[in-house]
Amino acid sequence: MEAIFMTEKEHTGLNLDALFIGDKSENADIFKSTMNKLVNAHMGWRLNYMPQDKPLITESDKNSESFQKTNERMQSVLDELSVRLRSNSVPWHSPRYFGHMNSETLMPSILAYTYAMLWNGNNVAYESSPGTSQMEEEVGQDFAKLNGFKEGWGHISADGSLANMEGLWYARNMKSLPLAMKEIKPELVSGKSDWELMNMSAEEVLDLLNSTDPKTASDIKAHSARAGHNMDKLGKWIVPQTKHYSWMKAADVTGVGLDNVVSCPVDEHYRLDVDALEKIIRDLAKDHTPILGVVAVVGSTEEGQIDPVDKVVALRDKLQKEGIYFYLHVDAAYGSYARSLFLDEDNNFIPYEDLKEVHQKYGVFQEDKEYISKEVYNAYKAFPEAQSITVDPHKMGYVPYAAGGIAIRHKDMRDIIGYFPVYVYDKRSGAPATLTPYILEGSKAGATAAAVWTAHRIMPLNVSGYGKLIGRSIEAANRYYEFLKNLHFNINGTEVEVNPLTQPDFNMVDWTFNIKGNTDLAKMNDLNLKFYQKASFVGGPVYNNDFITSHTDFATDGYGNSPVPYVKSLGFSEDEWNKVQTVGILRACVLTPFLYDRDNFESYADKIKKAMEEKLTAILG
Amino acid sequence: MEAIFMTEKEHTGLNLDALFIGDKSENADIFKSTMNKLVNAHMGWRLNYMPQDKPLITESDKNSESFQKTNERMQSVLDELSVRLRSNSVPWHSPRYFGHMNSETLMPSILAYTYAMLWNGNNVAYESSPGTSQMEEEVGQDFAKLNGFKEGWGHISADGSLANMEGLWYARNMKSLPLAMKEIKPELVSGKSDWELMNMSAEEVLDLLNSTDPKTASDIKAHSARAGHNMDKLGKWIVPQTKHYSWMKAADVTGVGLDNVVSCPVDEHYRLDVDALEKIIRDLAKDHTPILGVVAVVGSTEEGQIDPVDKVVALRDKLQKEGIYFYLHVDAAYGSYARSLFLDEDNNFIPYEDLKEVHQKYGVFQEDKEYISKEVYNAYKAFPEAQSITVDPHKMGYVPYAAGGIAIRHKDMRDIIGYFPVYVYDKRSGAPATLTPYILEGSKAGATAAAVWTAHRIMPLNVSGYGKLIGRSIEAANRYYEFLKNLHFNINGTEVEVNPLTQPDFNMVDWTFNIKGNTDLAKMNDLNLKFYQKASFVGGPVYNNDFITSHTDFATDGYGNSPVPYVKSLGFSEDEWNKVQTVGILRACVLTPFLYDRDNFESYADKIKKAMEEKLTAILG
Repeated sequence: MEAIFMTEKEHTGLNLDALFIGDKSENADIFKSTMNKLVNAHMGWRLNYMPQDKPLITESDKNSESFQKTNERMQSVLDELSVRLRSNSVPWHSPRYFGHMNSETLMPSILAYTYAMLWNGNNVAYESSPGTSQMEEEVGQDFAKLNGFKEGWGHISADGSLANMEGLWYARNMKSLPLAMKEIKPELVSGKSDWELMNMSAEEVLDLLNSTDPKTASDIKAHSARAGHNMDKLGKWIVPQTKHYSWMKAADVTGVGLDNVVSCPVDEHYRLDVDALEKIIRDLAKDHTPILGVVAVVGSTEEGQIDPVDKVVALRDKLQKEGIYFYLHVDAAYGSYARSLFLDEDNNFIPYEDLKEVHQKYGVFQEDKEYISKEVYNAYKAFPEAQSITVDPHKMGYVPYAAGGIAIRHKDMRDIIGYFPVYVYDKRSGAPATLTPYILEGSKAGATAAAVWTAHRIMPLNVSGYGKLIGRSIEAANRYYEFLKNLHFNINGTEVEVNPLTQPDFNMVDWTFNIKGNTDLAKMNDLNLKFYQKASFVGGPVYNNDFITSHTDFATDGYGNSPVPYVKSLGFSEDEWNKVQTVGILRACVLTPFLYDRDNFESYADKIKKAMEEKLTAILG
Repeated sequence: MEAIFMTEKEHTGLNLDALFIGDKSENADIFKSTMNKLVNAHMGWRLNYMPQDKPLITESDKNSESFQKTNERMQSVLDELSVRLRSNSVPWHSPRYFGHMNSETLMPSILAYTYAMLWNGNNVAYESSPGTSQMEEEVGQDFAKLNGFKEGWGHISADGSLANMEGLWYARNMKSLPLAMKEIKPELVSGKSDWELMNMSAEEVLDLLNSTDPKTASDIKAHSARAGHNMDKLGKWIVPQTKHYSWMKAADVTGVGLDNVVSCPVDEHYRLDVDALEKIIRDLAKDHTPILGVVAVVGSTEEGQIDPVDKVVALRDKLQKEGIYFYLHVDAAYGSYARSLFLDEDNNFIPYEDLKEVHQKYGVFQEDKEYISKEVYNAYKAFPEAQSITVDPHKMGYVPYAAGGIAIRHKDMRDIIGYFPVYVYDKRSGAPATLTPYILEGSKAGATAAAVWTAHRIMPLNVSGYGKLIGRSIEAANRYYEFLKNLHFNINGTEVEVNPLTQPDFNMVDWTFNIKGNTDLAKMNDLNLKFYQKASFVGGPVYNNDFITSHTDFATDGYGNSPVPYVKSLGFSEDEWNKVQTVGILRACVLTPFLYDRDNFESYADKIKKAMEEKLTAILG
């Protein structure tokens, strides 16, 4: 990195280069000395707990032959582990990796995880992990604040699929409560028709539940969907075509059923089409089919596109006046941390007109540009209007796997799904509220909470911290998009065009190669699949591969006709699309924290162009 | 440890003392040097991937003020983390810890986790983690073999609650398939009444599904419970009173519903009462209410007791001849690894008459005793007859959190819950089968697979490996049980009795203190709760606490009248029980790998007795 940027860095606080091991292990010494310090601290802790206790493993034990042999066996298995990992791992850390949603992770989170793992706390119960349970509580508050939930709550989950499932679980139990109220305490909902019961807002339902005594509330819950009641009356769960398949799994597992999942078309930018959504909802409402809920995706899995949450909220509010209500879950597994880009150091949402200036002040982008569109800004601004939001630290939080998360708008929503097992929660003990009765999972690593907590404490969830890191990835993605737009190849006389899918909302860039003039879609698909095979582990050891990417298919089964505008823009006819019904796409999540820089990008652009050329030559001859 | 045992150790292969850091960090040097070697291997890997690439973080960058300041900030947050963890963590590692299901974990697993975390593989897809995905496949095979499934399969889950939920998901979708067959391809089940359809065995259902073409099979699945069909016709899910509360949560989440959970009484040993189970099933069958499934618990959460799986299997087979069938899930989250005690090095189940001899040969127990009862042996022997089994490496596998797991009897059961998302599974790429379409979860740490794989490779899942380790905990638990049986206190003239609950099936010991002659149950409950408060984090910093345990309540709500024999044996009347309806219990999972040894135990017994005496004195004055 050239000296020219040093001044800029000096002025903007955090230097992100200090927080990663580095593609070339540049910070190996810092990592190792810090690890050593932490390990020593732990070892001393063990030694000094009850110093009167003598060690049970003696020096003489350690000198025994069986001890030596067992140690040799351990070393030998770890050597085998090392061989396997070094032979069969993917170099996320390299700026040559343009594939899945992964990159280097934060050095302090790796250190924190390892350190906390030495104690092996289990955040299932405060009692098992007082330190890390408290950290998870704080991280949950971070999630709530990040998403603008002032009275909210959140927690870490094993992954985003489970957080999504938990969101659907919330929605399902919530939707069923008015029917349970009618059964148990009809005066709560007197005068309401069944259709009105199925269209009560989450806030109304919570208020009514809170207005009853605990015994009645408990009876009502015991007659909700959790008991298996009225499962067939809860209506439809609407998700955009770009949905992650975890939504199908969630509908299956929760008993909502795949038949009740409705796929909503997306627009030409692969964002949820709100007009289509309105039409779907009105058509269902005509038949008095309730809407269990709607999912808006912020950072779609295949395109990184951002649904117009604001417009979905506006639609919800408009329909609510007409007596139609839906629960809104935002699946921001990928995109939630990017909300940091819009929060100032006092956690206020920055006005759009100030955004460029603030981003410049904090050095979020190197170029004199604002990459964030007004549409994307508005989507993030509307987050606090959702009921629940998926938040994955192991994606744009740059924390190691596995760390998903969820935030909810109202802390007391927890009661709708909550349990109180005896041994993990005892009010008489004076212990703070325990986590596991309120979440889908049971035992969970305290170390995960330590890793996320440490990341958040070093890098605040606002424009001065995560905003800068995510800005780097957005800038790199835009550089890559521009690079692809201007790229073409001549492979021994064959002209190869490079066609990015759409201007990225976020940091993912999709594209295809096509031979100039080719109007055979299957042939293009074949070219891109072959390219992928050469640019992934399929083509041999990834350690020898100088450019790695990922691949996906947009097929009518799933995407409907959303890919048509793109396919037509490449010169294929609609007939051709109807015949093939799928387009193969190359897909790059540009998460690297190093290619934001102009010079760095340019030096790698040359390498990548050369690598692409070699792969295309091998394919096209 | 005294020299006397050295010879024994030399003869029995693995020396388990070499595989733990040790209560007093005795193996700190081995841990640190191995960690250093692994970290160096990783750092070198990064450096040498594409050696032509220059480092992007230069020495000049590292010398900048902002880099130094950011590093200071990182160190300062890690210092805060260190303070919090050292102030608020539980000393599982100490032989003074007699509480929750936790202890030191295996040193090689901690090392393997850390090493693999540096690559941050995601086992969601083979492509993201070729090395660790392969390890998870191997670990899954280990789970299947451990449980005696010859054609089985398994995988790692985030925890046991999720594995249990997955078991119920399997059962639910399985149970619904015959109804879907009748709808889609009636000739498959022609001549069968609805009652017969609801009583088809898992094997029959799988055979029928496999007999159809893929398109038909897919249609049938699309009309099963996964679509939301027939959710109200699937019958009852029967769990013993000692069930983990995750079963309630699983019934809620999966839409099976709490109303369909039936609690089956346990006997005086807190094991599932199979006569009661038979009566429940026959009563339900009289009304043609199907049995969705039965759960047998192997290692109950509060008592460590082991349900008679063999008798449940015998009942299933008997009833099947009468046209009544149930799916059997074994919740062996706690107990599954102990099946290693019964497997020889060729993975054969050791005949009971040879057990003591084999255990002596491998040095499983120090005393000339066989702690394993015939009942427990028979329960483990019957595992391969279950359809699915929960297996938690983070419990008796001594692997750090979070690592649960599940094994299934028939690999092709996966199709019943499976999905095939485009981007994680592409047959054309030639990639091996990917995990995530067949499991409840999505993203998952490759590092977990590395940690479990390493443990299994060092310590085989048979009597020569894990059997020895678990033998240590069982022997320690029996020593503790005998210690408690012979214990009593005189606290300034007040006689305090110590009453263990029941002879442990496994390695958990429950007990109560009671003042001699006291017939007031509430008063005894108060004494034990106060003791717990002094012997846990509730009583102040655990680092200053010289004896730590856990506490639970057996109340009629949950346990019914199962505690009556114990309560009466302490001299309380049945009227007293009916009045109070709960008994507070102190609960020790004896997992420490060090107190199996006679001398070690005796030296700690004195310390523990003294610590108990001090706490009782503080309470009773």
